[in-house]
Amino acid sequence: MAVTELEILKKRFMAMRKLSEKIVEPLEKEDYVVQAVEDVSPPKWHLAHTTWFFEEFILKQRIEGYEYYLKDARKLFNSYYETISRPFPRSMRGLITRPTVDEIKTYRRQVDKNMEKLLDSSAPDKELVHLMELGIQHEQQHQELLITDTKFNLSVNPSEPVYSSQFRDSPITGLPEIMNWIPFDEGVITVGTNDEYFSFDNEQPEHRHYVYSYKIADRPVSNREFIQFINDGGYETPDYWLSDGWAAVKQENWKAPLYWEKSGGKWTHFSLTGRKNINLDAPVQHVSYFEADAYARWAGARLPTEFEWENALKEDVSDGCCLEQTIGLENSQLSNLHTGYVWEWTASPYVAYPQAARPEGALGEYNMKFMNSQMVLRGGSAFTPKTHIRGTYRNFFPPEKRWQCMGIRLAANV
Amino acid sequence: MAVTELEILKKRFMAMRKLSEKIVEPLEKEDYVVQAVEDVSPPKWHLAHTTWFFEEFILKQRIEGYEYYLKDARKLFNSYYETISRPFPRSMRGLITRPTVDEIKTYRRQVDKNMEKLLDSSAPDKELVHLMELGIQHEQQHQELLITDTKFNLSVNPSEPVYSSQFRDSPITGLPEIMNWIPFDEGVITVGTNDEYFSFDNEQPEHRHYVYSYKIADRPVSNREFIQFINDGGYETPDYWLSDGWAAVKQENWKAPLYWEKSGGKWTHFSLTGRKNINLDAPVQHVSYFEADAYARWAGARLPTEFEWENALKEDVSDGCCLEQTIGLENSQLSNLHTGYVWEWTASPYVAYPQAARPEGALGEYNMKFMNSQMVLRGGSAFTPKTHIRGTYRNFFPPEKRWQCMGIRLAANV
Amino acid sequence: MAVTELEILKKRFMAMRKLSEKIVEPLEKEDYVVQAVEDVSPPKWHLAHTTWFFEEFILKQRIEGYEYYLKDARKLFNSYYETISRPFPRSMRGLITRPTVDEIKTYRRQVDKNMEKLLDSSAPDKELVHLMELGIQHEQQHQELLITDTKFNLSVNPSEPVYSSQFRDSPITGLPEIMNWIPFDEGVITVGTNDEYFSFDNEQPEHRHYVYSYKIADRPVSNREFIQFINDGGYETPDYWLSDGWAAVKQENWKAPLYWEKSGGKWTHFSLTGRKNINLDAPVQHVSYFEADAYARWAGARLPTEFEWENALKEDVSDGCCLEQTIGLENSQLSNLHTGYVWEWTASPYVAYPQAARPEGALGEYNMKFMNSQMVLRGGSAFTPKTHIRGTYRNFFPPEKRWQCMGIRLAANV
Amino acid sequence: MAVTELEILKKRFMAMRKLSEKIVEPLEKEDYVVQAVEDVSPPKWHLAHTTWFFEEFILKQRIEGYEYYLKDARKLFNSYYETISRPFPRSMRGLITRPTVDEIKTYRRQVDKNMEKLLDSSAPDKELVHLMELGIQHEQQHQELLITDTKFNLSVNPSEPVYSSQFRDSPITGLPEIMNWIPFDEGVITVGTNDEYFSFDNEQPEHRHYVYSYKIADRPVSNREFIQFINDGGYETPDYWLSDGWAAVKQENWKAPLYWEKSGGKWTHFSLTGRKNINLDAPVQHVSYFEADAYARWAGARLPTEFEWENALKEDVSDGCCLEQTIGLENSQLSNLHTGYVWEWTASPYVAYPQAARPEGALGEYNMKFMNSQMVLRGGSAFTPKTHIRGTYRNFFPPEKRWQCMGIRLAANV
Repeated sequence: MAVTELEILKKRFMAMRKLSEKIVEPLEKEDYVVQAVEDVSPPKWHLAHTTWFFEEFILKQRIEGYEYYLKDARKLFNSYYETISRPFPRSMRGLITRPTVDEIKTYRRQVDKNMEKLLDSSAPDKELVHLMELGIQHEQQHQELLITDTKFNLSVNPSEPVYSSQFRDSPITGLPEIMNWIPFDEGVITVGTNDEYFSFDNEQPEHRHYVYSYKIADRPVSNREFIQFINDGGYETPDYWLSDGWAAVKQENWKAPLYWEKSGGKWTHFSLTGRKNINLDAPVQHVSYFEADAYARWAGARLPTEFEWENALKEDVSDGCCLEQTIGLENSQLSNLHTGYVWEWTASPYVAYPQAARPEGALGEYNMKFMNSQMVLRGGSAFTPKTHIRGTYRNFFPPEKRWQCMGIRLAANV
Repeated sequence: MAVTELEILKKRFMAMRKLSEKIVEPLEKEDYVVQAVEDVSPPKWHLAHTTWFFEEFILKQRIEGYEYYLKDARKLFNSYYETISRPFPRSMRGLITRPTVDEIKTYRRQVDKNMEKLLDSSAPDKELVHLMELGIQHEQQHQELLITDTKFNLSVNPSEPVYSSQFRDSPITGLPEIMNWIPFDEGVITVGTNDEYFSFDNEQPEHRHYVYSYKIADRPVSNREFIQFINDGGYETPDYWLSDGWAAVKQENWKAPLYWEKSGGKWTHFSLTGRKNINLDAPVQHVSYFEADAYARWAGARLPTEFEWENALKEDVSDGCCLEQTIGLENSQLSNLHTGYVWEWTASPYVAYPQAARPEGALGEYNMKFMNSQMVLRGGSAFTPKTHIRGTYRNFFPPEKRWQCMGIRLAANV
Repeated sequence: MAVTELEILKKRFMAMRKLSEKIVEPLEKEDYVVQAVEDVSPPKWHLAHTTWFFEEFILKQRIEGYEYYLKDARKLFNSYYETISRPFPRSMRGLITRPTVDEIKTYRRQVDKNMEKLLDSSAPDKELVHLMELGIQHEQQHQELLITDTKFNLSVNPSEPVYSSQFRDSPITGLPEIMNWIPFDEGVITVGTNDEYFSFDNEQPEHRHYVYSYKIADRPVSNREFIQFINDGGYETPDYWLSDGWAAVKQENWKAPLYWEKSGGKWTHFSLTGRKNINLDAPVQHVSYFEADAYARWAGARLPTEFEWENALKEDVSDGCCLEQTIGLENSQLSNLHTGYVWEWTASPYVAYPQAARPEGALGEYNMKFMNSQMVLRGGSAFTPKTHIRGTYRNFFPPEKRWQCMGIRLAANV
Repeated sequence: MAVTELEILKKRFMAMRKLSEKIVEPLEKEDYVVQAVEDVSPPKWHLAHTTWFFEEFILKQRIEGYEYYLKDARKLFNSYYETISRPFPRSMRGLITRPTVDEIKTYRRQVDKNMEKLLDSSAPDKELVHLMELGIQHEQQHQELLITDTKFNLSVNPSEPVYSSQFRDSPITGLPEIMNWIPFDEGVITVGTNDEYFSFDNEQPEHRHYVYSYKIADRPVSNREFIQFINDGGYETPDYWLSDGWAAVKQENWKAPLYWEKSGGKWTHFSLTGRKNINLDAPVQHVSYFEADAYARWAGARLPTEFEWENALKEDVSDGCCLEQTIGLENSQLSNLHTGYVWEWTASPYVAYPQAARPEGALGEYNMKFMNSQMVLRGGSAFTPKTHIRGTYRNFFPPEKRWQCMGIRLAANV
């Protein structure tokens, strides 16, 4: 492992850190503080928590006598590592006004400086590279949350403030009108990864899986198609729904995807640029697993398993659209099979792969301890950072959640 | 299909119906009414609901102008078939005092008579046989719930009433002290069933699945072993637990399996025959998936997938212990690998098998609409009726539930 | 104090005990068990709790070595006497199936026998007479609750079972159509009582109170009048309501008194004899304080204070209608000012009278510890036992409760 | 009414408005946004709501074609006037980030300018003077809340930030060690006010009330005395408590007043200047009505009624300590009977005075619609603005609330 590798990593680290700050640039200080529901976190918290991660797992471990820059950082910015300290209650994150936004920005700069110094003076070693990569990937996860959480926070304000007139909710001008099926044969396929350089624990190891012949759609479901489901009584017909899904429809009074409202006979949605008309040719998003599953049943199809998905679309992902395009840092470019617009719900519950090892210690808590009652999503959205998108990447959320950029791709038996 | 088949079925039907009444024989009328938590149902409700099932899906369909014997039966005893009627709220089942227990027993007898008449006069057809079998299997599911629900109901009474001095909580005198591993090879296995005669929709179809080499325990985990986990701080160590599991430990203040209490340094449990000392050599039961999973991690092992389980133990199941043994209707008999004592949690979330078809109409709601956020259990318990036990049978419950006879069998990679 | 007094008391005791059993005569065993909301208690519990009261405060104190007839009586049937034992959680009373109804009836008979024996052998003393009277008055309170709680329990059953075709919801054929005002002068009045024989702690002592001149209605508000309030948008106009009342209207979706439903343009109500048309000339009942207060504001009047009420109507009460009339044990008889049909909400919060002493020990918890956030009701209803009605009697309930026979009488400034 | 009156009022208005801004001076922008529990409101909201009050009830009424300065002001800053618009849910006030703090400060300045212009050009009329006074008194109420709400908000942060090192929690160095009783005679007293100039609707009218002879303490209860109650098992003895109070002790795990913690054997409290040792000679504060009532019962005394309080202490109030003293704008000065340190719980529920009229329209909702389930407090605290303190002033809160500066003064029968 050459010194150059650390230099490249340092550059990537610095670029990634800047991207986080680019995301929050349009915010007012007040916007950094709030947490409209327990699912979301205040932007301030995201900025501090990702910084604390570098402090806790790299600086503290590698620098003799290192002192946390902020008193109480461990208490306030530990998300869930029970092996480190009792985390501050998640539901109360939006009540913590100090440290202030400015103090947290200073905190970020200070940790950046310490990280630079460390990387400049370190003999490169495999563990450091791995931890750096983990820290980068971790903050990239939070970059997407920064946007989706802020969008949700702003949406509860009856004035519906604009996040940024520069940001777009989606980079897409249009999906092809006709959806085509791509067929695949029965047999043993290989999924997962042993990536030597970096992949999350939950993507490992590469392993064999038996699939039956199937076909998968060459693009996600469009808003136009989803409106047909609505118009056909989709939200009023229990047959299409899982039992818990139907209960959610009744209890939450779901009648359309999150953020949608009908006014004057037209569907609109709250977006990063304020309330807008629905673009009929864009992929539907902000639907729960329950809605995705009900839509598929209504359409006479089903959702793909994550294995079918990976087998069919793994390669397409690398060309997908990404955060950098969405916020205008890169030119727009589309993949053939239209991945990268929305996270696509799969029919697969989130569990460990065969032969998977669970890492020990605090980092062992990273992904593996959430393996119940969640569903896998694949592909990446228009808010996922480019180097965070991978064909083997497994995102996961409970089946009733809707505030992420979640969409639908159909599959069917052959 | 010969007439004899219907005769045999009629006999099985009558025997099964009698068994339900045998189960509630020790109860006082008052015991039939209550519902201590939403999960459980009043015994009265079980008796009526299973009867209504025969009325709704057989008598009503096959007898011209058939009138429900009880006004409001559809309203009160429909459990969840949204396609039939808006079900009465589950949480309020324990507030319904009429029809009375006697009226419901009369209702049962009346439906039995109508069923007999129908079966005597019917030309046998495949659909009738299937519906009869479904109705029988359905009531058998509720027979197990009758016992576990009543046990729970009685347990909230500080006087801890005895269910029956005849019934036992478990038919077992002892598990072998040493647990041995049985190894299995990597490759494509076949699981599920296309059983021509009867199997639930969720067991179908027979299909291929890829497994890696593994080993599985030749018996469930014993109380003795589980107490070691407790004594070793199992309930105080977050590392062993899934995140939701750890939250349950904290919120519910779990310190041992359900019904356990320590008094005078000794563990006791509330049982069908009152509070008793823990039998150290019996299989641990009344543990949640979270506890099973945490125990496995503590033990340096894991839970088997349902495919590994079926591949290893499918044959053993047919000799397992069963309800008829437990309540003394049959002589006790043990299987080699000690299945049939407790439902064994697997590492598999409850989802549809590849190529599975979802039946249409109300019966399509039977099993398939519960396919999220639940885990599969295999094997059958000492309260499962004998003809309800199958090697391909998939039981399922949410990961935090404990009131069923739920236990643990370990597996490991090789 | 002569022996005769004890004999009379014994007779009254036995008659009162019989009346409780008369009230539950129409019930099925199942009806004795349930508790549809926390406010109500199972009939079984009322029967046991009132019996335990005699055991705890008389038999246990006066008979050397007395053993509670039922193990766990103290645990299960103590309502709220913290000084005696930690009471069993109120919200779980409807989950306790044992002791059974028959056992509790035997318990009652046994305690009755012991009480008879005690009274026969006792030298009369003041404290015994007082405790006897307290026990009688206590059970009389529960007699009214037995009816109102059972009515509520039955009402949640979609089949709306009939309590008894013999019992009436109200003994009234009609109120006079015209309501007249009775005027009273400003000055110092005397309210409360020092009754030497028996009155509750909260009615004592007799004391002076300053009132301004006022007038009070000569009868309660009728259903006909209340329907005018409904038709005039009473439930849709926030101006009429207290803030908490308006919140209740919105949250509970109140549109009429409890038990009312409109069908075919006509108002009906669930009654002890099943669903019936509203009698327009009967007093409105099953309204909360919030509704009473809103009605009064709509009517350009106000509710009387409890002092104004007592000053005006104390004498009328003794002729009022009562439980014995309602269930047909006595001939019907009406008071001049129509008290005794419904408990009448007053504008007075429930607090201690000036100079009132709070008794010590468990019986000191009787009435005085509920003196916050409740409103006083006066007069007595058609379900109040005759010897329980007093002109100085103070009933009290939280302002949002409606399941008692609660009605409205108007007052106004002069 | 001379022009001068309006000029004086304008000056008072401007000074009052400045005081609000003085109170929030020490805050960071982030502190303005949050709402730690539903009871408190974000400082930003207080500043906007009080400003909107002048806009809604004065500018909008008096200036032809007046446009609200902030779009959505009516929606966001209406607290509870149902007659004006559906108020934004109180529980969500802490989620609204826009308008920003700066925008709200601009809003305040703009409304101030408009008010000045209006006052300069108005012919003085009685209604304008009344509305001005009402607006001033209204904002003064919120000035106290600004401090107590912010204190609570900061207290949930484990870092316990300092509000201001300049502000004090209390201006007091010491209460006299010995508490003396002041006696009063039985008879008809006069309470309430007909103040021609200004008083709240709930203080009116002046009226007669009958009191029995009583005595009242010459100072509030001290921390030293309250610690004796704690040490004597006050929080563990149900006898002292009202039933709802005891339930609160158990459920909320109360062991001392709000903000108190014991560390190293010493009681400390979270204060505006950070965590401090308890000053034993200061009046106890941050106790609920339940604690005040329990303390009094323990001490063999009782709380005074609001009428006894007013009769005894009305005159003392005018010299009491006040907000201006506490934050250092005026020199410290103490009243003889030590009123003005803490709001003193009385034994009187909050209801309308005899003969009181309820004003019509939105302002009729001001005080009168909260008249149930609250208790009256008297006297004023160290955070009450000087011109807001009145001997007839009735403050009111539900009996379980503790976050205001609430304390105890004893009374007793003679």
